[in-house]
Amino acid sequence: MAHVHKLVLKGQTVPISTIQRIIKNNVNQCRKVSTNQGLWAAKTHDENTSSPVPVGEVKRYATDCMVSVGVKEDHASALADVLVAADYRGHYSHGLNRLEMYVQDIKSKICDGNAIPTVLKDKYSTALVNGQNSLGPVVGNFCMNLAIEKAKKHGVGWVAANNSNHYGIAGWYSMLAANQGLMGLSFTSTSPLVAPTRAKTATLGTNPITLAAPALNGDQFVLDMATCTVAVGKIELQRRKGLPIPEGWAIDTDGKITTSADVAMKGCLMPLGGAEETSGYKGYGLATLVEIFCGISAGATYGPNIRRWMDTKRKADLGQCFIAVDPECFASGFQTRMSDLMSHLRHMEPADPTKPILVAGDPERAHIALVDAEGGIRYHVNQINASAALAEKLKVKPMKHI
Amino acid sequence: MAHVHKLVLKGQTVPISTIQRIIKNNVNQCRKVSTNQGLWAAKTHDENTSSPVPVGEVKRYATDCMVSVGVKEDHASALADVLVAADYRGHYSHGLNRLEMYVQDIKSKICDGNAIPTVLKDKYSTALVNGQNSLGPVVGNFCMNLAIEKAKKHGVGWVAANNSNHYGIAGWYSMLAANQGLMGLSFTSTSPLVAPTRAKTATLGTNPITLAAPALNGDQFVLDMATCTVAVGKIELQRRKGLPIPEGWAIDTDGKITTSADVAMKGCLMPLGGAEETSGYKGYGLATLVEIFCGISAGATYGPNIRRWMDTKRKADLGQCFIAVDPECFASGFQTRMSDLMSHLRHMEPADPTKPILVAGDPERAHIALVDAEGGIRYHVNQINASAALAEKLKVKPMKHI
Repeated sequence: MAHVHKLVLKGQTVPISTIQRIIKNNVNQCRKVSTNQGLWAAKTHDENTSSPVPVGEVKRYATDCMVSVGVKEDHASALADVLVAADYRGHYSHGLNRLEMYVQDIKSKICDGNAIPTVLKDKYSTALVNGQNSLGPVVGNFCMNLAIEKAKKHGVGWVAANNSNHYGIAGWYSMLAANQGLMGLSFTSTSPLVAPTRAKTATLGTNPITLAAPALNGDQFVLDMATCTVAVGKIELQRRKGLPIPEGWAIDTDGKITTSADVAMKGCLMPLGGAEETSGYKGYGLATLVEIFCGISAGATYGPNIRRWMDTKRKADLGQCFIAVDPECFASGFQTRMSDLMSHLRHMEPADPTKPILVAGDPERAHIALVDAEGGIRYHVNQINASAALAEKLKVKPMKHI
Repeated sequence: MAHVHKLVLKGQTVPISTIQRIIKNNVNQCRKVSTNQGLWAAKTHDENTSSPVPVGEVKRYATDCMVSVGVKEDHASALADVLVAADYRGHYSHGLNRLEMYVQDIKSKICDGNAIPTVLKDKYSTALVNGQNSLGPVVGNFCMNLAIEKAKKHGVGWVAANNSNHYGIAGWYSMLAANQGLMGLSFTSTSPLVAPTRAKTATLGTNPITLAAPALNGDQFVLDMATCTVAVGKIELQRRKGLPIPEGWAIDTDGKITTSADVAMKGCLMPLGGAEETSGYKGYGLATLVEIFCGISAGATYGPNIRRWMDTKRKADLGQCFIAVDPECFASGFQTRMSDLMSHLRHMEPADPTKPILVAGDPERAHIALVDAEGGIRYHVNQINASAALAEKLKVKPMKHI
């Protein structure tokens, strides 16, 4: 457990006063919440929440599951790291929740858990990598480590990968770079769920963008955002509660904006910005930028050619992009200016005194602090039950609560 | 005029069928409209519109104005190119509309129109440039040309500039790279106008992001977007018409979302995404990304330290960032895939048959085609009158209409 803590927390230390302020103002409402990348809203702890599961135990369990279906230890561990990091940071949609999907991909041989990515083209600052259909985190770590090496030598490393798979939270890879004092960026194309502005069918993915940049004393700016307004999970949540959704989240099958969660589930997600009058075409443009950096650059599938979500009949062939940049190549004092800007933002007067201004990465830091304080991650009971069932099916030791 | 046409159109040729389809569906409503980057909405031609002014004549006039206040010919021409490109592409807020501001900056010596940028640090793929407080387009062209040179040698060129000034439309610089078969990106920090999510005062700029990427036969993807929902100009337009503004554009001085254009003018712009429930924090995150790539990296002013809009008491010291990437370093066939994706998007079935799905850059191409068809750019009469007054003041030959 200590090992995993260090792995995930590396470079994440922030001034204790900041954490305390964030926790005080947010964390009581912020448990078990963030089913989406970047979600700042929150809900309170309830009877459906488990007792804490130590972070190291979650890692052990996820690794065991992957090993049990034939994935070698280091690849299983790489995947487990990314899934655990998602839950630890509060992005439960991308953590244990996805483990069975990865297990299934290995069992059906749609993904080759033991394949090693290879470099197809290499120039000073760039590389094209064939992911060899390996696990997304194996490809992602390979590519970002290559980008980091190039950035240290040449200032920038820009690596595009084809033939990859789901790589978990995009922020994992940008933070690999930030933990070494670099700016890190990553992008991945994903299955079509988002309709371009004016269209009524989905042809672009939720296509995340992430930037992590180091500040003083281990503090970091960590932006990790889908380029659509919200992920499907938030709509599901509203539907489960019988609540409407805000305008700008989704359209119906005729392309009209809907506030019904039921209708939305049959329609499409909207790009960031929502309707055309609120500049949804900018989110659509950003989603296309991600396609260009990923599948288009790497020669992988892109846009409408990417397999549908949960399609397991053909391999994913996802395109991904990893960038590292050494700020020392520009003006010295980068981290000092980062800390100054972040401090300024965090101390701005809020419109609502109970809702402090946050910097990208703060909600996740608050969640990490909560997990550490409680000694583990609390899951929804449905997740706990699903994990127990999976453990039994795979004949691995189930996760142990505190 | 022929010269300027070629300059601006270089790499902009698209299949005539595409232009025709776009013009047919859009251009009749798309004249004299786009007061904002990326605006796709439109209004019709009316009695306040001038007869066309040939593009070459606009360029001549703008150059003459700058030369008349002591700027050397090539610098004056560089600035004029960018202003004319803005009007030609339909982004009137960034064209002649701004000329007097640049003239004023030279006259007051707040900007040194004849200064030459210098390289402060240079590594294989990166450079830090001191703009020497020269005109923004002089700094921008210098930096992007350096980035292009680096991209051709090393795969990527990433150049950060400090001590710069307003550089016009960001898309000008990304297109410089795209016109040479590269992907081009540019970013600039700007004066504070946008409030971070949960805040009630402006501390970030409209901070644009642009990506231009080449497709087959000169077609291009050209995303050029502010990271706020809309620019101030759109709110002014609604106020002039006595109309409300949509939710998500602006907040009042208490930080509450307003639909009153009057109230909005005293408040702040909102980041792309609008309210927190529609993920406005993503736009806030993107605006911060721009600060990090610009002022923070380059050691220029950033965020709250940037002078207020139209403040002419101190120099701007803007930070800017220019990136060029050679797609040939990745999978071959980049332009073919670009064209395939763009064609797919353009031919998707629209929700409203009168509003075809567009790709970033299409509205501008349609505007260019209209200007070419009419033999010049039509301006609002107020702009024509202001330009005539400026010509008289500077004792240069006024612009001649057709």
